[in-house]
Amino acid sequence: MAAHPVSPLAPKSYPDLPAIAGVRFVTAAAGIKYQNRTDVLLMAFDAGTTVAGVLTRSKCSSAAVDWCKAKLAGGLARGLVVNSGNANAFTGARGAASVQLTADFAAKALGCSTDEIFLASTGVIGEPLDANKFAGVLDSMATQLGTTPWMDPAKAIMTTDTFPKLNGAILEIDGVEVKINGIAKGSGMIAPDMATMLSFVVTDMPIAAPVLQALLARHVATSFNAITVDSDTSTSDTLLAFATGKAAVEPIESLNDPRAEVFGEALRDVLFDLAIQVVRDGEGATKQVCIHVEGAVTDASAFRIAKSIADSPLVKTAIAGEDANWGRVVMAVGKAGEPADRDRLAIRFGDLLVARDGERAPIYDEAATSAYMRGEEIEITASLGLGTGKASVYTCDLTHGYITINGDYRS
Amino acid sequence: MAAHPVSPLAPKSYPDLPAIAGVRFVTAAAGIKYQNRTDVLLMAFDAGTTVAGVLTRSKCSSAAVDWCKAKLAGGLARGLVVNSGNANAFTGARGAASVQLTADFAAKALGCSTDEIFLASTGVIGEPLDANKFAGVLDSMATQLGTTPWMDPAKAIMTTDTFPKLNGAILEIDGVEVKINGIAKGSGMIAPDMATMLSFVVTDMPIAAPVLQALLARHVATSFNAITVDSDTSTSDTLLAFATGKAAVEPIESLNDPRAEVFGEALRDVLFDLAIQVVRDGEGATKQVCIHVEGAVTDASAFRIAKSIADSPLVKTAIAGEDANWGRVVMAVGKAGEPADRDRLAIRFGDLLVARDGERAPIYDEAATSAYMRGEEIEITASLGLGTGKASVYTCDLTHGYITINGDYRS
Repeated sequence: MAAHPVSPLAPKSYPDLPAIAGVRFVTAAAGIKYQNRTDVLLMAFDAGTTVAGVLTRSKCSSAAVDWCKAKLAGGLARGLVVNSGNANAFTGARGAASVQLTADFAAKALGCSTDEIFLASTGVIGEPLDANKFAGVLDSMATQLGTTPWMDPAKAIMTTDTFPKLNGAILEIDGVEVKINGIAKGSGMIAPDMATMLSFVVTDMPIAAPVLQALLARHVATSFNAITVDSDTSTSDTLLAFATGKAAVEPIESLNDPRAEVFGEALRDVLFDLAIQVVRDGEGATKQVCIHVEGAVTDASAFRIAKSIADSPLVKTAIAGEDANWGRVVMAVGKAGEPADRDRLAIRFGDLLVARDGERAPIYDEAATSAYMRGEEIEITASLGLGTGKASVYTCDLTHGYITINGDYRS
Repeated sequence: MAAHPVSPLAPKSYPDLPAIAGVRFVTAAAGIKYQNRTDVLLMAFDAGTTVAGVLTRSKCSSAAVDWCKAKLAGGLARGLVVNSGNANAFTGARGAASVQLTADFAAKALGCSTDEIFLASTGVIGEPLDANKFAGVLDSMATQLGTTPWMDPAKAIMTTDTFPKLNGAILEIDGVEVKINGIAKGSGMIAPDMATMLSFVVTDMPIAAPVLQALLARHVATSFNAITVDSDTSTSDTLLAFATGKAAVEPIESLNDPRAEVFGEALRDVLFDLAIQVVRDGEGATKQVCIHVEGAVTDASAFRIAKSIADSPLVKTAIAGEDANWGRVVMAVGKAGEPADRDRLAIRFGDLLVARDGERAPIYDEAATSAYMRGEEIEITASLGLGTGKASVYTCDLTHGYITINGDYRS
């Protein structure tokens, strides 16, 4: 793969995430596809770590996704193996065998049951993954586990990403400091229908797996599931959250525990930050775009309209061209197939009203709107005037960079 | 608007369509947006001409679309006015007034009722259209009506099109020669949910409006409704068919008349050819792409899967890069939300089997497949192995040209 220029929206600095008791990790270069970079991540969790996950709804899900779906029922995790460069998707029986073999190697290396091993793979679809590449590698990795730096796993899982993605939160629960660390990768094939490409979150909060699962499912809706780069949903979308339980507080055993809300909000912040980093590293992105829809008949309807706008190539190319082409927003509202009344529709770019009551706003200011479009973060709000439904979807612009990256990825 | 290079897929020559009794037309340059080219088309039909139409389902349809929907109920047409450069869409009450005024001018110029005037506008959305520009123009045009050349109207309705689109058929019914002439425009914002951007078909066949309507609706499904350039559905999609009835045969009054089938097939051929011309002139297109889905649970399911593949930016950029990246086809099948079984899926590029039974085909030939991808017309077939449902969708690749055209269209 050719190296692509780092996104102009890359962070100016990266957080130095703290160690979390109960989790250790190491990365290695197994040469699966890339040369001169790490491409395997092994995480080891102490006994008693709970796990929750949200995975792609693709009908062509990868072998690793199938594996995780099956193992999540147990609610316990001791190990995670992630490789980049090969998605092990659409690899048939060989894919399933490869996943089993990888889990066997990892369970042996970590001294646990294969039922407590979770797996994720990202990269080219359809290329068989030779699990024997992991044989000696995982044994050797298991002897080198450490607690920092979190930058290493964030880098090892990258594919077309131009920067590593990590974020964390520290919150106080019952007077005790509780930590949440998260990493993610994703840049193209991003229109998660469950989670993004790959994201892994670790906390030391003791929390029962079903509660963690419920919080993860709730907050993925407004974070990873509210982003799109190119409307293409991956076969490998995987978000896993691990709770080592090492923080010295009473465990959260029920959603009715008021601390579940507090913890959930912090978890949501981490997920949201990671999701925004994914759109800011969207293939070829030069601008971050937030689409807000309000006044729809329901929140779900608002979401579908926001997604229609965020996925529209014509809206996204106009933004790339710094053109306040709000007529294309009208088009995208119109094609969404959701209740909308042309003659009640209002559109704002940032705080600038550009259209209302089915036509261009009398106060429309072309110069001011054009100046707004030159910014790095663009907010577009469509007000339908029908009800109280609202939703936000986050995306990026569509540029020559996207074509360059994707016109020559596999070869 | 900047001039863009002519599509490499443009026809090598154009048909010289014959005059059709009962219709005359003329084009003019009204300077609505473009300089030094025609941008208004006036067609006049003899009394007794029947009309049928299929229009966009966009919730933000243009004023002209609303007008046509209302007037189609009458089933009779005497005039058609089309302008390019301004879609008169999302122009509120002023848009409706502009349409009424244009119809008034046209009815006066042609000496008929406004209820028999049909209108279509294409171009920028949201810009008020000053109908007074048509005042003297239409009167003067009405004195210059002629029966050829059909190239003139095909050119007058173009926007980002890089070549005019026209096609015709001559068939024999009851021993009499019957003609069908059609023109179309469209290049971007093409994912018709009813008809394409704009297409007008004229025949001398005497045929009742309800029968013409039924045939048009039937055959639009596998022609204009089976194409996509960029998944964006226009506010202005309009397909109108006019039947002057001048051919010396008994009229078709019912769908049960066996001649309806014969005439319908010829009509379908014209519509299909025009639709394919639209994808071959897709913004930035360098390759024509046909997506076939077979073995789906129903035809409708097959169509949605074919559309998912045809709309996928990752599939389209891979084709632009001449990369046989069939993994992205797997992804697009998986995200379609339709019944699919990963482990029964087979994919062919042309006649080359690349995947079957959920993994790469043992006979997969990278060199042969890569050679195939260098062709100008690419066929991709996904076989689901579930049932007998099938459908085809036609599209083009996604290239730097699309970004260039749409990143700087309005300004």
